[in-house]
Amino acid sequence: MFGAGDVRVVDVPDPVIEQPSDAVVRVVRACVCGSDLHPYHSMPATDGGTPMGHEFVGVVEEVGAEVSTLTTGDLVVAPFAWSDGTCEFCREGLHTSCVRGGFWAANGIGGGQAEAVRVPFADGTLVKVPAGADTALLPSLLTLSDVYGTGYHAAVRGGVTKGSTVTVIGDGAVGLLAVLSAKQLGAEQIVLMGRHRVRTDLGREFGATDVVAERGDEGIAKVRELTGGHGSRVVIEAVGHMPAYDQAVGVVRPGGVISRVGVPQYDEAAVGFGSLFGPNITLTGGPAPARAYIETLLPAVLDGTVQPGRVFDRLVKLEDTADGYRAMDERTALKVLVQP
Amino acid sequence: MFGAGDVRVVDVPDPVIEQPSDAVVRVVRACVCGSDLHPYHSMPATDGGTPMGHEFVGVVEEVGAEVSTLTTGDLVVAPFAWSDGTCEFCREGLHTSCVRGGFWAANGIGGGQAEAVRVPFADGTLVKVPAGADTALLPSLLTLSDVYGTGYHAAVRGGVTKGSTVTVIGDGAVGLLAVLSAKQLGAEQIVLMGRHRVRTDLGREFGATDVVAERGDEGIAKVRELTGGHGSRVVIEAVGHMPAYDQAVGVVRPGGVISRVGVPQYDEAAVGFGSLFGPNITLTGGPAPARAYIETLLPAVLDGTVQPGRVFDRLVKLEDTADGYRAMDERTALKVLVQP
Repeated sequence: MFGAGDVRVVDVPDPVIEQPSDAVVRVVRACVCGSDLHPYHSMPATDGGTPMGHEFVGVVEEVGAEVSTLTTGDLVVAPFAWSDGTCEFCREGLHTSCVRGGFWAANGIGGGQAEAVRVPFADGTLVKVPAGADTALLPSLLTLSDVYGTGYHAAVRGGVTKGSTVTVIGDGAVGLLAVLSAKQLGAEQIVLMGRHRVRTDLGREFGATDVVAERGDEGIAKVRELTGGHGSRVVIEAVGHMPAYDQAVGVVRPGGVISRVGVPQYDEAAVGFGSLFGPNITLTGGPAPARAYIETLLPAVLDGTVQPGRVFDRLVKLEDTADGYRAMDERTALKVLVQP
Repeated sequence: MFGAGDVRVVDVPDPVIEQPSDAVVRVVRACVCGSDLHPYHSMPATDGGTPMGHEFVGVVEEVGAEVSTLTTGDLVVAPFAWSDGTCEFCREGLHTSCVRGGFWAANGIGGGQAEAVRVPFADGTLVKVPAGADTALLPSLLTLSDVYGTGYHAAVRGGVTKGSTVTVIGDGAVGLLAVLSAKQLGAEQIVLMGRHRVRTDLGREFGATDVVAERGDEGIAKVRELTGGHGSRVVIEAVGHMPAYDQAVGVVRPGGVISRVGVPQYDEAAVGFGSLFGPNITLTGGPAPARAYIETLLPAVLDGTVQPGRVFDRLVKLEDTADGYRAMDERTALKVLVQP
């Protein structure tokens, strides 16, 4: 990406092993994330550009001398943060706070929207999948990089359990997979707030029991009516813009939880007596440690119990990645696969 | 209170039973709360004034026809919110959100800084104590009205458990009793941030393992150093002013919890990527449902295992209540008992 709206595919040097714990992975499928649209809207123009993409499934091409769990030819899922897998945060499942870890497409590490990527701490970062690179499961496997793990994180942090009432704000890929995750965790009532019929229909298939298309006060009133009058015990905010935060505060039940996974496009928000404090609302969430959830979520993906890959509704070739951004920006696509 | 700094003791009509679920309680001990200082600083002048006080221990003088669990002569603790004890929120222990409940000194209900109070929903609100009105435990029993329950709520909401590392911001009565509560819940390391030696010494007796007098960046660095470099898993914010919030964000460990019980004197605060979201910090807390904790905390008070009443360091007669406010405002007293 060279600036707002300016995505180009260019030749760069091939990634090579730099550290003995590295692997080089040839990308089989990558994709465009809703969060990639933020720089797509606002990035200042640059001469050099920046690599993009933080979700990919690929085949191990080469491993460094210290890599012990992977070998050339393995199909692997890469979570959206790389991590050493051994520090105190990784050991407790908060890989996004790994003391030696980091994010793709920054500090000399490439992005997933590419032919190949150097993966630091390959043993800690990558998860080997027992399937070949030709599997029809590639789209669903790819959701384990980010959107599925993020939806699952939202539900876990929200405390969703058997019988829960959950409201999900946002019908993007993360919101829809938060619905799927809430369903998997046993939620009884799942209200999906969204206004894009194709998406909310998929949300119903994923487990939403109610859909509320209204926004603002009208949407809040509708959700409260659907959830017994006092609001929803768990609210998942999967958008990141301020109106979604206000919506969350409006629909949450006293004593309830707002779990945010939409990357906040604001620094400050209402947290005082009239919003969170008075009714004892808990605010939680953050970037999902997707790595922590891959082993948990993988079996149901492999056996077809869940099909999170249904959030992908378009595929572009790597050289057409700019078209993928455009389609997601114009909302003609929900989520775009990129095939090198 | 007739305005900022203007506290007067005046004659008002005696409270009487108005509803069959009411009781009239003669106050034995009341007190001044840190939160009473907020209107003491900022209340606009009025002709009529407003009753004050939301913490009291008293003797039941009369009960309405429907009151079944109390009788004349019972010693009772009144939590700082009155509640019906039967609604869905009361049943789940969130009495501060009782659908028919409310707060003292508002909407025709008197305050605790008085000779007597009409108590709505007496069966739901009051807890009978197996002791006489002459017990030496009165100060400790009175803390169950608010400050002890509030400190305990902070620790419970913060998820304090055996072995926890906890930082408590604020050496007021609530902060000190949050230390005591964290200790009771099994915390291993308790860092108390406060600069009033007499108070922090009491905090050490209550269970603080470390005291940090520094504030701002220096205080943050000190706490992080004490807690292994990454900060404290549980942070209790027992002040309510913005610098204390910023302090909490500064000392909390990634993946940790900030539990607020200081009534926020702000509406908005930092919650974005750089503060709460990025490191997956949870923000929780609110007004304590003190009623929910009285039965839990009472036994150790009655048998002397804990002495939360040590936070009181001055007693004034009801007619001298203004002196009590002044002493707390000038910080010459930690917390002031009022004896009618």
